[in-house]
Amino acid sequence: MFGFHVTKTDSESEARLGRLSTFHGEVETPVFMAVGTQGTVKGLTPQQLRDAGVNMVLGNTYHLMLRPGSELIAELGGLHKFMGWDGPILTDSGGFQVFSLADLSKKTNKGVAFRSHIDGSQHWLDPEHSMKVQRDLGSDVVMAFDDCTTFPSTYQQTRASMELTHAWAKRSLDAFKGDRQALFGIVQGGMFEDLRSISAEVICEMPFHGIAIGGLSVGESKEDMYRVLSHTAALLPSDKPHYLMGVGTPADLVNAVSVGVDMFDCVMPTRNARNANAFTSRGSVSIKQARYRTDEQPLDPDCGCYTCTHFSRAYLHHLYKAKEILSPVLMTLHNLTYYQDLMKGVRDAIREGRFTAFQRDVLRTYGAQEIHNLSEAS
Amino acid sequence: MFGFHVTKTDSESEARLGRLSTFHGEVETPVFMAVGTQGTVKGLTPQQLRDAGVNMVLGNTYHLMLRPGSELIAELGGLHKFMGWDGPILTDSGGFQVFSLADLSKKTNKGVAFRSHIDGSQHWLDPEHSMKVQRDLGSDVVMAFDDCTTFPSTYQQTRASMELTHAWAKRSLDAFKGDRQALFGIVQGGMFEDLRSISAEVICEMPFHGIAIGGLSVGESKEDMYRVLSHTAALLPSDKPHYLMGVGTPADLVNAVSVGVDMFDCVMPTRNARNANAFTSRGSVSIKQARYRTDEQPLDPDCGCYTCTHFSRAYLHHLYKAKEILSPVLMTLHNLTYYQDLMKGVRDAIREGRFTAFQRDVLRTYGAQEIHNLSEAS
Repeated sequence: MFGFHVTKTDSESEARLGRLSTFHGEVETPVFMAVGTQGTVKGLTPQQLRDAGVNMVLGNTYHLMLRPGSELIAELGGLHKFMGWDGPILTDSGGFQVFSLADLSKKTNKGVAFRSHIDGSQHWLDPEHSMKVQRDLGSDVVMAFDDCTTFPSTYQQTRASMELTHAWAKRSLDAFKGDRQALFGIVQGGMFEDLRSISAEVICEMPFHGIAIGGLSVGESKEDMYRVLSHTAALLPSDKPHYLMGVGTPADLVNAVSVGVDMFDCVMPTRNARNANAFTSRGSVSIKQARYRTDEQPLDPDCGCYTCTHFSRAYLHHLYKAKEILSPVLMTLHNLTYYQDLMKGVRDAIREGRFTAFQRDVLRTYGAQEIHNLSEAS
Repeated sequence: MFGFHVTKTDSESEARLGRLSTFHGEVETPVFMAVGTQGTVKGLTPQQLRDAGVNMVLGNTYHLMLRPGSELIAELGGLHKFMGWDGPILTDSGGFQVFSLADLSKKTNKGVAFRSHIDGSQHWLDPEHSMKVQRDLGSDVVMAFDDCTTFPSTYQQTRASMELTHAWAKRSLDAFKGDRQALFGIVQGGMFEDLRSISAEVICEMPFHGIAIGGLSVGESKEDMYRVLSHTAALLPSDKPHYLMGVGTPADLVNAVSVGVDMFDCVMPTRNARNANAFTSRGSVSIKQARYRTDEQPLDPDCGCYTCTHFSRAYLHHLYKAKEILSPVLMTLHNLTYYQDLMKGVRDAIREGRFTAFQRDVLRTYGAQEIHNLSEAS
């Protein structure tokens, strides 16, 4: 059922064009997945997601297991049917959010006991249970249950955490039963390149359908992120999809593509939208600023989304000031369209052999640097 | 520019089928206008409004004059362009909301001094200024500036308030300059039928394009509302549109149509949606109730709206519990569709000579009574 094929490799970089096949259809890579935390990409209907160009969505195991519960979602026909999204869905393992959101009571090699941030109820998560929950959800891509190394961590802490991730990766594989699902492993190792090398070797030897790079964009400097990303991405097998978890800005995306990343997710376009911040072809726009009160221009004059073709910045400014629901809706519609257009631009550029020029344009728009400039400087 | 024609009169009731022509197009009556308080019908894009069947929108002068300001909206090309709605818009006069929302500092025969509920700033509203603001907004139907009688009020208070409304109606007419706009007068008179008779006579003698019934649904009993409505509606000229302001439930709408009302607005479908309450073909549904947690059925099995054709009650329950933006969006989309379908049902029934049967069906659904049963009982 699951398949991945690289259809073109860039001659000037490690960028690849590919095709991911899942039970719920195919998507071209590099792909950016919209984050649908609680069974909804905040503010948008599935129709509006399609209009924005979204073709793959991420769901959060931690949130959905607590509310409404994965067994209920299974009874109701799975996450696709529940949220009305018929395209591919990737679910995370719950690990990251247990560590970041829950009231953690105990972590052992066996798993994690925690209390729900919603109602304080007691729960347990481990590789076997994570596989079970993600099977209930019926996602197309399941993530192995990993231990997210806290940042900053010492070398010893990072190595111990990485080894736990490796043990849990093995248990995830053993517990995984999806015939319609694919399972991705996660490379950890914190900010230490030698640990990243070990982790890549261990994880890539296991029969995962794809490989994710975890533990980045957790508070480290851009230099560190790019250094570790460059180092790690180069170690991944070329015939499997490479997924960079939780990253990032438009500049991060093109830079990560240039070192061979195929899949992304990040809350940035949706969360920033709710905070009135837009990504545009001319850089960031904070629509709450008073300068936009009388601005007749669209949010992004180069954008063809519903928001930009129907409304002025003045109207968007007004909606934000008036705390209207339509403010996050229209801003999210734009930001997701921007991210999807960016990824389409990435794919077209790779296809047409002009990716490096495209990458430089994006970096110039945001005043950002190329990944190698930063990663080598450090 | 403005026109109104009754195209069919019901043989068993006072219900009429009509056609309202405005600068921004025609609408068939009886019509229900969606309330777009601050330049947006809360939660929905104009496209979603069209999908719900909405063809006329109401804007609030009070809100828009305070934020973002009517002069800014005029500079930006008017309210239609500002909010991206190209169909007819009716604006209220600002009077009702000044009295209900603002910190009122002084009312005289001249006008009303008040402080903004947003920032405490000082403002002034009178018939001339209300006409000016509504001209800035560029609405298709402008409402005369009236004095909303508080409820309850004595006969003397009600008469004095009514007389002020009449004086302000005259001043509204004198100040009105719209060549693309129509101006509606408002009949007041509180709960007193003889005052309603006087007010109807005075207002209907003035050259307004339409006549509104104000001062109902302000806290009085259903019996009182229906009694005053029946009495007043019968006094209105048949060649002008009759607009019942701020009413009401589905039962209120069909009952008001049965005594000759052509136009309605009410926050009920939109506000109730945000509070998780749906109007359905089987009566009200409060989606927050625990019984819907596992309910696979659509919100309203007989509804063809996007919400009902794509999502289960269980999903809508989840969205509400998780405080997701999509909750008010999908609930509003349904409730407005329900109201528009109801009005389409009303129009079809009048056209096909079966309005009374249609009315009885709606009353039965909500366990409500016919207007004459209630108004005669009191």
